[in-house]
Amino acid sequence: MPAETPADRANDLCDRALAGDRHALARLLTAVENRTPVAETALRRLYPAAGHAQLVGITGPPGAGKSTLVAALIAELRRAGRPVAVVAVDPSSPITGGAVLGDRVRMQSYAADDGVFIRSMASRGHAGGLSSATSAAAAVFDAAGFDIVLIETVGTGQSEVEVAATADTTVVVEAPEMGDEIQAIKAGLLEVADLIVVNKGDRPGAHRTAGQLHAMLADTPREIRPGRPMPKHPEVLVTIAATGSGVPELLAALDRHRATLTGTDGESSRLARAEAQVWAVLSDRLHDRARSIEAAPLAESLLRAVASHELDPYAAADRLLGLMAGGGEAGAGRL
Amino acid sequence: MPAETPADRANDLCDRALAGDRHALARLLTAVENRTPVAETALRRLYPAAGHAQLVGITGPPGAGKSTLVAALIAELRRAGRPVAVVAVDPSSPITGGAVLGDRVRMQSYAADDGVFIRSMASRGHAGGLSSATSAAAAVFDAAGFDIVLIETVGTGQSEVEVAATADTTVVVEAPEMGDEIQAIKAGLLEVADLIVVNKGDRPGAHRTAGQLHAMLADTPREIRPGRPMPKHPEVLVTIAATGSGVPELLAALDRHRATLTGTDGESSRLARAEAQVWAVLSDRLHDRARSIEAAPLAESLLRAVASHELDPYAAADRLLGLMAGGGEAGAGRL
Repeated sequence: MPAETPADRANDLCDRALAGDRHALARLLTAVENRTPVAETALRRLYPAAGHAQLVGITGPPGAGKSTLVAALIAELRRAGRPVAVVAVDPSSPITGGAVLGDRVRMQSYAADDGVFIRSMASRGHAGGLSSATSAAAAVFDAAGFDIVLIETVGTGQSEVEVAATADTTVVVEAPEMGDEIQAIKAGLLEVADLIVVNKGDRPGAHRTAGQLHAMLADTPREIRPGRPMPKHPEVLVTIAATGSGVPELLAALDRHRATLTGTDGESSRLARAEAQVWAVLSDRLHDRARSIEAAPLAESLLRAVASHELDPYAAADRLLGLMAGGGEAGAGRL
Repeated sequence: MPAETPADRANDLCDRALAGDRHALARLLTAVENRTPVAETALRRLYPAAGHAQLVGITGPPGAGKSTLVAALIAELRRAGRPVAVVAVDPSSPITGGAVLGDRVRMQSYAADDGVFIRSMASRGHAGGLSSATSAAAAVFDAAGFDIVLIETVGTGQSEVEVAATADTTVVVEAPEMGDEIQAIKAGLLEVADLIVVNKGDRPGAHRTAGQLHAMLADTPREIRPGRPMPKHPEVLVTIAATGSGVPELLAALDRHRATLTGTDGESSRLARAEAQVWAVLSDRLHDRARSIEAAPLAESLLRAVASHELDPYAAADRLLGLMAGGGEAGAGRL
């Protein structure tokens, strides 16, 4: 038997994953996360089979109860007999295991259920790398026949904007009565929301917070983002994820949003997602090229010159770009 | 008189800013933030004069009191007769003005003091763009003779890692007794910290939180980051920024950290900063190129093919890369 190439391995794993083999699916996801040689072949093979799932980003500030809400959504989807996949993005830190792990363990109760597949991914590396890996994992689930993929991100900031770019539907989860500065941060999140959930709805002030969000949204002109079916103000829902209250209504809202993704609106949304995916791959490729160049002695000497303020960063960047483009440009090699 | 070119304007502004003209300095910072044609010429001109200031990143979760701490540090530095510049990075949202503005207004009391210059920057655009603009603004202040530049970021996540890459000294600010999930997020921040400040030290549990952080750090192997003078566990300090308590001790700790930045350790730290700066410029350049290509009909048709799952994102990215590298590669133009 000849030696197995990464391409053979990829094709074998794809065949088995498409036939419903969970072990093969898990190995594909690992390959995608670690960007092994298997990953790209597999993704190129699977991509034509993808494009049917609804990708739902679940995001929001720490403490809003995102993981509990994801668990409640899984339960609701399973009650309806619908398969569901989850991509949960963890902070990269080794210290973080504890807090987040509790929710993950809760989700292990679905270990024997073939209709549920939960995958945690580390958020290591540059931001583009994370978005690329998340998007690739979602595509694997999509091709494998999962009808809905929940993408949960822990944390706030740039990652939310990237979730919005990856997802068909972005759900922003808030807790009632957060402080002033959190309010400020929240504003950035609200702009990417297709649906807003005020979770922990049994706490005092939950419905007041929902009302305030509603009023805030009504007063705020929606940013018109190229390729997105905006500007429509997102629905505001109240849930108690821990008891499941409000979760059927959330699922119904997700389904309603999914219905808006077909037709012309859907076309522009798919185009925006394609752009984000292509840019993520492009960014990965460029990072790889730059890193390999940085390893070279010329790049090292360029950086030393910048560090000692003999050369400015623009000049150094242009010389590196010249190198990356094949050596013909901007004085590559001239240091 | 011949028409003034952007390069003339840049040189004129640089001459005046280096001579202490605050109006010219403000215009340079605006040019840097908006990436006008003036900015690059000015930065290339100023870069050889920079490299003397200590860049101090001040970061941490929402509500920890970063802005108040920055205001207290300014007061402490001014008492010592030291000039100080501040680059404050705001979330991009138009809704956010309110909460953050309060602290900014408090800082306006230094409007008549030539030894203080405070500049807010919007965090719009891609993450690399922000880091590039922040780093450039710091270099302008550095060249203009400010001995210490405080860089305050609002929010949590990827931006902290970028602050760490830009700054010589990274201060992570925490509030006492934050919840479990915030604890998890915090861990990611702790990894980039050179100094940790537990602010709001008059709240119950502040010293217990400081002790817990201390214990947590002692138990945690520090990640050895290339080019950083690690692994040393960061000092943990307690402050009450609102009253100034603990702030002289914080300034002393900043000065101690600055002293470690000279010699061999300093060399590797400067190299790491140079790498981050060059990568930021490179990333800007590539984004610009990609955007301009995306506007072209070929790029549009590539994206449409990806959106309809006829072409996979890898193939599309490689064709775009071929275009960006000058057309000779990977089947550019072949769609």
